[in-house]
Amino acid sequence: MKLRIFVTLKPGVLDPQGKAIHKALDGLGFGGVNDVRAGKLIELDVADSTDDAAIDEMCRKLLANTVIENYRVERA
Amino acid sequence: MKLRIFVTLKPGVLDPQGKAIHKALDGLGFGGVNDVRAGKLIELDVADSTDDAAIDEMCRKLLANTVIENYRVERA
Repeated sequence: MKLRIFVTLKPGVLDPQGKAIHKALDGLGFGGVNDVRAGKLIELDVADSTDDAAIDEMCRKLLANTVIENYRVERA
Repeated sequence: MKLRIFVTLKPGVLDPQGKAIHKALDGLGFGGVNDVRAGKLIELDVADSTDDAAIDEMCRKLLANTVIENYRVERA
């Protein structure tokens, strides 16, 4: 079973990587960019028997820092 | 207009970050994980007038390294 985990910073958390990308886009002449947020995409290939609780635990224990990050799981 | 850019390593390109996550999941006792690939998720808020060609150019010039990475654009 293929899973895609999207890890994004919570609103209000400073995002220096996103800011750097924003500045670089401006520097390259791309106007009209209002905001950039950088996150992570983790693609997992797990056994079909893996249940939702286990997937959730993986995210909370390792893949996302739930103090500052949100995560979303998508089954592909 | 909100965009989400998914940047993933091309098949065959070594992914040490994904390997490290895989090992850490094993170490935490999560069995049944066959493969892990790490990628990037970049959320852009751009002016509605931004056309597809400009978005594509942003990806090719800055957001993705097209030698080793694929990218996909999703309009949110």
